[in-house]
Amino acid sequence: IGPGGAAWRTAEATEALAGAAHVVGHGLYLDLIAEVLSGKTRHVTPLGEEEARAAMALDLAAAGKSVALVSSGDPGIFALASLVFELLERRDHGPWNRVAITVVPGVSAFQAAAARMGAPMGHDFCVISLSDLLTPWAAIRRRLQAAADGDFIVALYNPASKRRKTRLAEARDILLMARPEDTPVVIGRNLGREGEQTDLIELGKLDPGSADMLSVILIGNSRTRVTERGSGRWVYTPRGYDVKIDETM
Amino acid sequence: IGPGGAAWRTAEATEALAGAAHVVGHGLYLDLIAEVLSGKTRHVTPLGEEEARAAMALDLAAAGKSVALVSSGDPGIFALASLVFELLERRDHGPWNRVAITVVPGVSAFQAAAARMGAPMGHDFCVISLSDLLTPWAAIRRRLQAAADGDFIVALYNPASKRRKTRLAEARDILLMARPEDTPVVIGRNLGREGEQTDLIELGKLDPGSADMLSVILIGNSRTRVTERGSGRWVYTPRGYDVKIDETM
Repeated sequence: IGPGGAAWRTAEATEALAGAAHVVGHGLYLDLIAEVLSGKTRHVTPLGEEEARAAMALDLAAAGKSVALVSSGDPGIFALASLVFELLERRDHGPWNRVAITVVPGVSAFQAAAARMGAPMGHDFCVISLSDLLTPWAAIRRRLQAAADGDFIVALYNPASKRRKTRLAEARDILLMARPEDTPVVIGRNLGREGEQTDLIELGKLDPGSADMLSVILIGNSRTRVTERGSGRWVYTPRGYDVKIDETM
Repeated sequence: IGPGGAAWRTAEATEALAGAAHVVGHGLYLDLIAEVLSGKTRHVTPLGEEEARAAMALDLAAAGKSVALVSSGDPGIFALASLVFELLERRDHGPWNRVAITVVPGVSAFQAAAARMGAPMGHDFCVISLSDLLTPWAAIRRRLQAAADGDFIVALYNPASKRRKTRLAEARDILLMARPEDTPVVIGRNLGREGEQTDLIELGKLDPGSADMLSVILIGNSRTRVTERGSGRWVYTPRGYDVKIDETM
């Protein structure tokens, strides 16, 4: 369904919801799309119980119902699509193998945050989740190191939780070994929803208090710039390395 | 405007087009959205002349017109948004500084290709352009090496052109040093448009003939899987490292 409101939802997502008799999702996400759910049976499952949610959607579909399993953002990016195929393979449950599946792509949070601030993701980039619930921290650290080595722009998902207070500081320190303290960082919260906030800070100032589980963090590469020209203050990463900004300013 | 047809366009993009009196873009992209352009003045510029296109949009806006500068995919991902801010800063042109700008995010080609085949981008990933028009090949190679070191899923944009026939083979060989020959690779062409094609091959079989400038290529990481369960053949990357698929199959 995209990050939040109707503006960032695709026509395909709206049609898929219209065609479903059953809608399965976290209550927060179903509330975001309440205006297109009238007359449908809602199946609300708590955040964190992703596996039960995906299995419920497969069970309903295997029973012949038309079902929409709702993810925010893009279901293919740190969301439910991967889990559905994982369950299909892991459980190899006969009735589930009759289910016809369509994955509906959507605007992910990093794209919404980027658009609000200009074009920070305008060159090669990585998207990394800092959640170590299912991935060992050593594997995540290795990816952060690779992102630093490659001078990638980096989008961080799940940057913090009550349990993991130090991960974001570790990520910052790995990147700071390879790019300056004043590298632009965009922090987006509640994008397209009530309470939307987009902040611009410097990488050296990024600390665990800067973000919560609902934030997405965009960290520029060594060439990402802030400009105050035009109607506002913008962050962008130039398309290439041959652009001679310094010579013409 | 997303990758192609109306289905993958957000409501915000459709509204932005409706509110514009002038539309600037490559002819191919304007043809894709012809149904929402009636009554508007079209400014068609050739592919490759991105700078002239962005400057024209800024000139029209500075003259008081409402203008939509059209990118396919997400304008913030290897598209025109970055160039607009680059031009604002580089030229520092007085009238342009009065222009109010909104960046409208969209579904990018890698997301559309991923959705068609399941959830190949379901864990940490990189997006890399193989075009060396503005970026030295050494910088691109360094990023491919980092993507290999970090075991990232990789999406490649601009994978081939007449001038660059060997780049894709170099990219494949760098990744093959760190992941198996049978790593799933998805090649998407004309997504959401006439002639759409999505192919699944193995990394060892990826060669310069596999792709053209209009293709997007998704290369799995070491854990990306193909499954034939459910209603079709799917590619997905599991969410985490603790999932014990081998033990339960």
